[in-house]
Amino acid sequence: MVFTGANLGLTLVATVLVVYFAPTAAGPGIPEIKAYLNGIDTPNMFGFTTMMVKIVGSIGAVAAGLDLGKEGPLVHIGSCIASLLGQGGPDNHRIKWRWLRYFNNDRDRRDLITCGSASGVCAAFRSPVGGVLFALEEVATWWRSALLWRTFFSTAVVVVVLRAFIEICNSGKCGLFGSGGLIMFDVSHVEVRYHAADIIPVTLIGVFGGILGSLYNHLLHKVLRLYNLINQKGKIHKVLLSLGVSLFTSVCLFGLPFLAECKPCDPSIDEICPTNGRSGNFKQFNCPNGYYNDLSTLLLTTNDDAVRNIFSSNTPNEFGMVSLWIFFGLYCILGLITFGIATPSGLFLPIILMGSAYGRMLGTAMGSYTNIDQGLYAVLGAASLMAGSMRMTVSLCVIFLELTNNLLLLPITMFVLLIAKTVGDSFNLSIYEIILHLKGLPFLEANPEPWMRNLTVGELNDAKPPVVTLNGVEKVANIVDVLRNTTHNAFPVLDGADQNTGTELHGLILRAHLVKVLKKRWFLNEKRRTEEWEVREKFTPVELAEREDNFDDVAITSSEMQLYVDLHPLTNTTPYTVVQSMSVAKALVLFRSVGLRHLLVVPKIQASGMSPVIGILTRQDLRAYNILQAFPHLDKHKSGKAR
Amino acid sequence: MVFTGANLGLTLVATVLVVYFAPTAAGPGIPEIKAYLNGIDTPNMFGFTTMMVKIVGSIGAVAAGLDLGKEGPLVHIGSCIASLLGQGGPDNHRIKWRWLRYFNNDRDRRDLITCGSASGVCAAFRSPVGGVLFALEEVATWWRSALLWRTFFSTAVVVVVLRAFIEICNSGKCGLFGSGGLIMFDVSHVEVRYHAADIIPVTLIGVFGGILGSLYNHLLHKVLRLYNLINQKGKIHKVLLSLGVSLFTSVCLFGLPFLAECKPCDPSIDEICPTNGRSGNFKQFNCPNGYYNDLSTLLLTTNDDAVRNIFSSNTPNEFGMVSLWIFFGLYCILGLITFGIATPSGLFLPIILMGSAYGRMLGTAMGSYTNIDQGLYAVLGAASLMAGSMRMTVSLCVIFLELTNNLLLLPITMFVLLIAKTVGDSFNLSIYEIILHLKGLPFLEANPEPWMRNLTVGELNDAKPPVVTLNGVEKVANIVDVLRNTTHNAFPVLDGADQNTGTELHGLILRAHLVKVLKKRWFLNEKRRTEEWEVREKFTPVELAEREDNFDDVAITSSEMQLYVDLHPLTNTTPYTVVQSMSVAKALVLFRSVGLRHLLVVPKIQASGMSPVIGILTRQDLRAYNILQAFPHLDKHKSGKAR
Repeated sequence: MVFTGANLGLTLVATVLVVYFAPTAAGPGIPEIKAYLNGIDTPNMFGFTTMMVKIVGSIGAVAAGLDLGKEGPLVHIGSCIASLLGQGGPDNHRIKWRWLRYFNNDRDRRDLITCGSASGVCAAFRSPVGGVLFALEEVATWWRSALLWRTFFSTAVVVVVLRAFIEICNSGKCGLFGSGGLIMFDVSHVEVRYHAADIIPVTLIGVFGGILGSLYNHLLHKVLRLYNLINQKGKIHKVLLSLGVSLFTSVCLFGLPFLAECKPCDPSIDEICPTNGRSGNFKQFNCPNGYYNDLSTLLLTTNDDAVRNIFSSNTPNEFGMVSLWIFFGLYCILGLITFGIATPSGLFLPIILMGSAYGRMLGTAMGSYTNIDQGLYAVLGAASLMAGSMRMTVSLCVIFLELTNNLLLLPITMFVLLIAKTVGDSFNLSIYEIILHLKGLPFLEANPEPWMRNLTVGELNDAKPPVVTLNGVEKVANIVDVLRNTTHNAFPVLDGADQNTGTELHGLILRAHLVKVLKKRWFLNEKRRTEEWEVREKFTPVELAEREDNFDDVAITSSEMQLYVDLHPLTNTTPYTVVQSMSVAKALVLFRSVGLRHLLVVPKIQASGMSPVIGILTRQDLRAYNILQAFPHLDKHKSGKAR
Repeated sequence: MVFTGANLGLTLVATVLVVYFAPTAAGPGIPEIKAYLNGIDTPNMFGFTTMMVKIVGSIGAVAAGLDLGKEGPLVHIGSCIASLLGQGGPDNHRIKWRWLRYFNNDRDRRDLITCGSASGVCAAFRSPVGGVLFALEEVATWWRSALLWRTFFSTAVVVVVLRAFIEICNSGKCGLFGSGGLIMFDVSHVEVRYHAADIIPVTLIGVFGGILGSLYNHLLHKVLRLYNLINQKGKIHKVLLSLGVSLFTSVCLFGLPFLAECKPCDPSIDEICPTNGRSGNFKQFNCPNGYYNDLSTLLLTTNDDAVRNIFSSNTPNEFGMVSLWIFFGLYCILGLITFGIATPSGLFLPIILMGSAYGRMLGTAMGSYTNIDQGLYAVLGAASLMAGSMRMTVSLCVIFLELTNNLLLLPITMFVLLIAKTVGDSFNLSIYEIILHLKGLPFLEANPEPWMRNLTVGELNDAKPPVVTLNGVEKVANIVDVLRNTTHNAFPVLDGADQNTGTELHGLILRAHLVKVLKKRWFLNEKRRTEEWEVREKFTPVELAEREDNFDDVAITSSEMQLYVDLHPLTNTTPYTVVQSMSVAKALVLFRSVGLRHLLVVPKIQASGMSPVIGILTRQDLRAYNILQAFPHLDKHKSGKAR
């Protein structure tokens, strides 16, 4: 009762915080960070409130014994800290230091957030290189050599801080923190011996990992869609769902160990057996002295300790097959139903627990056929399920190396990861991509689809409403009209539309700058071009770099409506353009490689009387999914590639 | 005499092979691979002859006891194998399998060569993850997620093969191969203890590494320029230079140990002491039984063993200060004079030897002040000098982790690497960049220089000779004329130049395609547009993907000169264009991000009577160095940044 009650209370705190104060703090946050680094701004993702809720909520959810990890939340928290540092504090209390201006552009903000996410992984797994590689392989979209060593620097700082805390905590006053030192799940004392015959079980683990991982992705997708329906019903439903999952978890964790048989302690093992009242292997639970309950060793402990116990090596008979099956089944169910609830939740640890269970089962089933320790089988199982679900390779490999400190296991780990990833890729997308799709975030993939070569940007543009253009010197009324009636973020500026010499493209103006002009009331009485110093006097570079576009609080009087604005000085005169006959595939490569937000389509032949710009393409226009909505005949493989 | 003679013979073989058969096999090859992946084709770099010479020459040079490593050559050999596999064999005996067509484009060839270089590093250091990261951080210019796991896959295969050989060699029949297992310089049995006070020596190592590394780069640059002068005098001079270096090396290696004192064997150490006739620590050399010569332990052995010996831990008094100084001084000299000779040579091992020497000296000098073992000091010294000279971080960190198998050393290694890189960067460029500059390879950096924002591509274009254009349907004589008198690789194709309606830009045609047209004699009697099927009949996609542009063997008769060619079907109708008012910085970002070879400059205003294209920019035009030649006033920091 106390156990269940405490868990329910902690879950309630975590859920209420998330539901009522920061809904964006739910889940791992990694897909949203991935989307942000791809160029998609999710509102309220990196705010101060989100961060605080994520910290407290994650502590609550992990402490409540729910089957979720702290890795995803730590990545998100790292990114929040990076973002807040970069902008000089929370939204309402920003410090406006001069040097903070350097971060006032998209690229540096992206870099900071990449460093933050790498630090998060590093803090979660005490794995500095793994953190850098995770940020590189999974999170970041654009990568530069400079960014590589910046992330490396931030993870180095994290390690130094961690190490300092571990040194301070050496006296044992910090509870469980630092007990593992810098290596969380050390299996370095096992001798790794393997021969050609071991290739069969190792391949099996990889194949299982791929199949189970993609199955997990598939089922989790279904569960998340179901949860979305429940969550739409209201905030109270979200809270009740969380509490239900917590109740189920607590009952299973406490009740299931009674099903396991008591096993006698093996006197040949050095460890204390049975253990009570502290973390460790061989929990006594309901058994007599000299005996331990193997299932309670795995269930009635922290998730980290459960991993440590199931990875424990040189203990071939510690866990019975029945207990492992119960553990595996339970964590499969928990892994599916827990992730979607409205608390901060990470995916790594649930997957590690599931994977290590079937890895250890396979190792136990192999018996004397294999030379590899059961504990190492558990490590390989965890790695294979991670690769099967998340489809990472290099970063997982390094993370597992840094978690387990066993370099000789590396070749087998690589082998398992590659098999699991390949098998998984042949079924469905990675779990983060599935979540991205589910959230409807317009993520741009690196490579265009093959059918995009058969469509020109001109054809794509014809399926859109006609482009809204502005004149170089425009009437205030027109600007207000355009801002009110469209949601576009940029408008082509044309010159000479009212003369007979033919129009020409002057450039592209941002919505944010139009709003800024109206707010500052930078109006002219007559239609004339302004001088550069007039602009410099009125707008500072910092103001122009800001991206606020809240137009509602600007009141323009009707007399002002008749005035003019010279848009020339605020226009980007060299926007990227493509001719209408370019294929969508080629335009997408340009869009994604350079990291654009708008791409102007110009006609092949510039005849007089024709508009010099025939359209403007944005991220949404270039998404494969959206193109297929407008041109369904293009996708010949649609039936084959069910999503 | 025998020692010197054998070394001279081996050096002679290596040098003669390189000088007379494959001059491109000299040096490490890494800068050229880096340039190739940046888009610069160096002739004869990945041929079969080059590979064979590199293999035999590298064996000869390393066996000759020269102060050079096998890592650079292995990277180059890996890339050669990748390139040959991708094109189906050596140039003259290619297998024309259907699936080889898939590699017949620049991107896949680049990917293959990246995989090859990663495999090379993996084979050299038995470091699969380090190899992937080396390819990522140092070699590759463009990076995609797919490439990451392809390189990972190739290094995994390398490890599996290595491991299989090690298993086969377990019986000891393979000589020195496989003696270290998969970990070359294992220091995992040392307990790593460090406290806050150790930050001072560790920082010192980092700072020394940065200063010495940049000093090494600076001096090596001077030496290489001197060697260039010598090498220009003729082939025989190259051979004599190599032999001189070999003679000096042999004499020093054999003579200097006589300067060292004999030290008594420490009975508390398990290892055999003194050792003779085999690789190992504590060489006896000229000493009585029970004594060893510490300098001969370092000098009279293979380079790999020297590293292993100087990394040896729990032997605080093994090496005397004088011996270490002699060793350090000798390898500084050898490292400078050996690298530039005409043999395959790697930079890693010489730098590791130099770095480990001063690391160990510092460790010995610290005495009881520090908790860190002298062997670990040597490791840190090696890492710091590598970072100070090569300026890599993550990849070096992982390579050292995989070389030494000591995860607890990782935080200190990261710290040292970052300090050394930062200190080194404040002095000069990395060694590979210096070599790139020296070889005059037009490498494009990822980031534009700040002053590039103040120059438009129009201004840049005005400093060039006017662009050569072709008509859509062009006379053969004109094409021949253009091919003979220019070396451009692409020409804009204009339509309607002879009509009054105004010209328009049809696209860009490649020199290779013009040559192909002339070779195939695809001429028309009258000026007309062709149909698509006529082209398909004449040219296969494979032919069009080939890049041969040898125009000399095409003989055109004078009657053929009067015929016409329709260039339209062979023209790329959607080349990337920029307006003339775009800044060079922005154009460079586009050029480099998308990986272009030609960028068309179009006028801001397209008036009739004006050419629709005003210029064409290539890699050479966008290089900072070349721009500064034409616009010297732009570089305000020139005096500050001496190169």
